Amino acid sequence: MRLSRYFLPVLKETPSEAQIVSHRLMLRAGMIKQSSAGIYSWLPLGYKVLRNIETIVHEEQQRVGHIPMLMPTLQSADLWRESGRYDAYGPEMLRIRDRQDRDMLFGPTNEEMITDIFRSHVSSYKDLPLTLYHIQWKFRDEIRPRFGVMRGREFLMKDGYNFDLTKEDALHAYNRHLVSYLRTYERMGLQAIPMRADSGPIGGDDTHEFLVLAETGESEVFYDSEITDLTFGEREIDHDSHEACQAVLEEFTSRYARTDETHDEALFNQIPEERRRVARGIEVGQIFYFGTKYSEPMGATVQGPDGKPVPVHMGSHGIGVSRLLGAIIEASHDDKGIIWPEAVAPFHVGIVNLKQGDDEADAACDALYAQVAALGLEPLYDDRNERAGGKFATMDLIGLPWRITVGPRGLKNGVVELTSRRTGESEELSPEAAIAKLKEHFSAINLPGKGV
Amino acid sequence: MRLSRYFLPVLKETPSEAQIVSHRLMLRAGMIKQSSAGIYSWLPLGYKVLRNIETIVHEEQQRVGHIPMLMPTLQSADLWRESGRYDAYGPEMLRIRDRQDRDMLFGPTNEEMITDIFRSHVSSYKDLPLTLYHIQWKFRDEIRPRFGVMRGREFLMKDGYNFDLTKEDALHAYNRHLVSYLRTYERMGLQAIPMRADSGPIGGDDTHEFLVLAETGESEVFYDSEITDLTFGEREIDHDSHEACQAVLEEFTSRYARTDETHDEALFNQIPEERRRVARGIEVGQIFYFGTKYSEPMGATVQGPDGKPVPVHMGSHGIGVSRLLGAIIEASHDDKGIIWPEAVAPFHVGIVNLKQGDDEADAACDALYAQVAALGLEPLYDDRNERAGGKFATMDLIGLPWRITVGPRGLKNGVVELTSRRTGESEELSPEAAIAKLKEHFSAINLPGKGV
Repeated sequence: MRLSRYFLPVLKETPSEAQIVSHRLMLRAGMIKQSSAGIYSWLPLGYKVLRNIETIVHEEQQRVGHIPMLMPTLQSADLWRESGRYDAYGPEMLRIRDRQDRDMLFGPTNEEMITDIFRSHVSSYKDLPLTLYHIQWKFRDEIRPRFGVMRGREFLMKDGYNFDLTKEDALHAYNRHLVSYLRTYERMGLQAIPMRADSGPIGGDDTHEFLVLAETGESEVFYDSEITDLTFGEREIDHDSHEACQAVLEEFTSRYARTDETHDEALFNQIPEERRRVARGIEVGQIFYFGTKYSEPMGATVQGPDGKPVPVHMGSHGIGVSRLLGAIIEASHDDKGIIWPEAVAPFHVGIVNLKQGDDEADAACDALYAQVAALGLEPLYDDRNERAGGKFATMDLIGLPWRITVGPRGLKNGVVELTSRRTGESEELSPEAAIAKLKEHFSAINLPGKGV
Repeated sequence: MRLSRYFLPVLKETPSEAQIVSHRLMLRAGMIKQSSAGIYSWLPLGYKVLRNIETIVHEEQQRVGHIPMLMPTLQSADLWRESGRYDAYGPEMLRIRDRQDRDMLFGPTNEEMITDIFRSHVSSYKDLPLTLYHIQWKFRDEIRPRFGVMRGREFLMKDGYNFDLTKEDALHAYNRHLVSYLRTYERMGLQAIPMRADSGPIGGDDTHEFLVLAETGESEVFYDSEITDLTFGEREIDHDSHEACQAVLEEFTSRYARTDETHDEALFNQIPEERRRVARGIEVGQIFYFGTKYSEPMGATVQGPDGKPVPVHMGSHGIGVSRLLGAIIEASHDDKGIIWPEAVAPFHVGIVNLKQGDDEADAACDALYAQVAALGLEPLYDDRNERAGGKFATMDLIGLPWRITVGPRGLKNGVVELTSRRTGESEELSPEAAIAKLKEHFSAINLPGKGV
């Protein structure tokens, strides 16, 4: 993309309404614009990152065999009356009356609707196991929306639902989600720690929240420092194997790690003092096993092997897609702006022309642009007539992983400058060598949209 | 995908509530499930087609330089009060009050919101031309939703908005959209004819609707039969060229083609009688030029070359993404089911194993599955223990372009059967020859998600 043809309304001033760094940087980088309290438009740059995160979530869900679908945003109140949650849910549920005076609501989650789909179409244990998921806009009418997309009212969430014949199978689905989530977050450059949590209005006994450590986190968390040494890495896991998934769960949840809701001071104090950590975390996902909480009242049964009807065991599993942008920025920025992890970056390489209109510089930039694109990467070429300082500041603010700086002086010596946003290090290289280095660097990265 | 691991709840009976063939077939093929009147869940098969259509629209928009972003579903009533449309819009607008008693609405369209974004961020003519678009769920509270996704209440639409300094530039944007839309629909296997139409609540004088001819269409249309001979084909158009885009507009709109809203009997009768056609059409898109209708009341001005503020000239341009599924099925089906055009098909090749459990047949199917996937195509392998007749009926119903039938008898002779869903023709070929034929066939097709 050429910046002269793009819409990137960066702000020079720091917006006063933003209290945390991710919100400030998303506004300054022209990624979002608030349209009403807690409701945002995703401007082109923000939308690109949102799509990358969404694509990674899709790919990782499908890698483990979960099936994508899509439920609508508006739901009938009747479904929620069946589960008993219509009255139980508080004022955070946005209730709507349509022109026929029917009670509707903007879905905050989809347990009832997916259970309705299941009971309408599945009648035999032979059709299990089954895990369906979707990525759809949700609404929670927060009394005090804040922190930008981190605590918005309209937000994008992946929510998935497993249906199993037995508790054991459903716990395997739970473990498989944990495995998949570990991989998903790492692909985005995040360390998200599974912590024992409270199940809240979803219900159930087994639940883990995934938290990214950050000073601005809304939850206080308590953990054994050993847990931050764990990484999932490039393991190949057989997702159908109960044992393999159970082993990952045990590895990642055997050490103490809890949110304040489930914190147990006595247990915590059994950890050697030098490993005890109290910090803050941003919740980026949660998995639940809740057995037959919805299937029983809503009559979601299947015929078991013995011919008798049994209510299915279920769980639900969520990833906060839109809030992940905030979490990633909280975890990865500096004084100059955002530092995108490669896999979610809106563009991979920024090209800065120091002398727009100079024939040689323009031609070199055009050639680099084509070569970066030929690698399957997306370049953003700042082809505006602006001072170099302004161009650099914009590139640093929007946080592209790499910058190639092209100017007449360097070209005389046959070199351009390749700069890493993360380390700040620059190298003078021939254009060919710069492209070769980018090629090698990105060959190790699993970019979204290239297939799983 | 293996069918044993998929969720494809096909129906044996024809649902009585569905009045038109696309609605019946979408229900029978397990593509959608109604959750409330005019509101649907997209089951896995339907969701895959929806995504393919969405991807084609994205790719064709970006091909001509339009910039993707995303606006929220809920909007503040205040914005609509500025344009005067809050009161003008009838009961089809779903009005909502949040917990703070603010008037909100579920957006039926986004002229106000995009104009607000524009006026907040753009102040100079140098930033023009600019066309932003998004693909987002909309809501229109139809009094009588019907025909499935063709006239639903919650529906997915691409809506794009151009901002230009002059009327001439804005008319070029209008023409560019027309060019892009012709290409978009053809890529989906549809002939959509631009017809002069009425602008309705969007406003403006210049507007064309794109209509797909179908008996079940909601609009009566009148046209010169010569227009159906026109195809856009693989032309390479310079989208920045006013002349090139204008020439396409003239070619495709110079013949008589109007909806009943703008039909002129006297003009129509000037066409030679044998070329006069009266038929029905399904509206799948519409483009508008409306000048300063929104920019003036909402203060969306830029500083012109002379330093003086001028309101921008705008247009808006919509494609009915979710309703396109219905339109495509109306245009492409037979007694047995759907016939998907290749570019939107949920899977490209069905593999039917006539004797599941037979070692040789299973191995041959597994090998074909891997080879189809290696072509970059998506196979759907019916690996269930079902009768051949049931498997064929399902494949015909869901309409995959090609079917490979594998059985022990054929394998003894070294052949499998390759069947075209569209022509019904079958060939016995070696597995290698079948794969080679599929490779050649699909090499001519611009599948979504492979890059523009």
